[in-house]
Amino acid sequence: MDEDCIFCKIVRGEIPASKIYEDDLVLAFLDINPVNYGHTLIIPKEHYQWFYDVPDNILSHLMIKSKKLVAAIKEALKSDYVVLCVVGIDVPHFHLHLVPRWLDDGMANFWPTKKYKEGQEKEYAEKIKMSLEGI
Amino acid sequence: MDEDCIFCKIVRGEIPASKIYEDDLVLAFLDINPVNYGHTLIIPKEHYQWFYDVPDNILSHLMIKSKKLVAAIKEALKSDYVVLCVVGIDVPHFHLHLVPRWLDDGMANFWPTKKYKEGQEKEYAEKIKMSLEGI
Repeated sequence: MDEDCIFCKIVRGEIPASKIYEDDLVLAFLDINPVNYGHTLIIPKEHYQWFYDVPDNILSHLMIKSKKLVAAIKEALKSDYVVLCVVGIDVPHFHLHLVPRWLDDGMANFWPTKKYKEGQEKEYAEKIKMSLEGI
Repeated sequence: MDEDCIFCKIVRGEIPASKIYEDDLVLAFLDINPVNYGHTLIIPKEHYQWFYDVPDNILSHLMIKSKKLVAAIKEALKSDYVVLCVVGIDVPHFHLHLVPRWLDDGMANFWPTKKYKEGQEKEYAEKIKMSLEGI
């Protein structure tokens, strides 16, 4: 637990939230600044800052519960799809965004993309592979 | 396996890809249309269309491997952060995007957000909770 963390305060009930699901390990509630109405956050109840800080068993549990949440959001709101997203530079308590989306909701589906120049793709793959071996 | 799926073809080695990591269950490789260079995709080797179609054990394994991949991408490319994203309406073989991001890379961090009107938030939470109970 982190004394000043806004999501820890929600877990402790010190700040209200529209809760969707709760168990011993995770809590899901509506984002108060939704991309679309029904935009849900799911968090581990314990305070972990980054995605890779979350212990394997808690992360697995969170993702398995997210499968049901995504299906429920899609069903309840008749959305065309649901985007899952971890940004990682806003509230420093790991959270997964579950955002209902419609094909005609007027927002970009993704970020703009680039192309690799000759040889560059191989170079990037090698760099990442090398780092991965050290982890 | 799906005969015509582009990601299944990559798994079978019929289409080349810059592979980063591979084991019995998952494959990670560079997206050929990267948001930023080093943008990686991780997929289950078996063909599952949507996020919630992926069996719990495979999804857990994929996420646990993604923890290491995210750390490796951040380390190798000295990115400020790494965004994880499941869109779900492009290639119909479940894939998680791991996108290295820099604070000055000129792209939006997220989609624009809205506010709920009085009473609306509770209404949305109730709708989703009700659907969740039926799943």
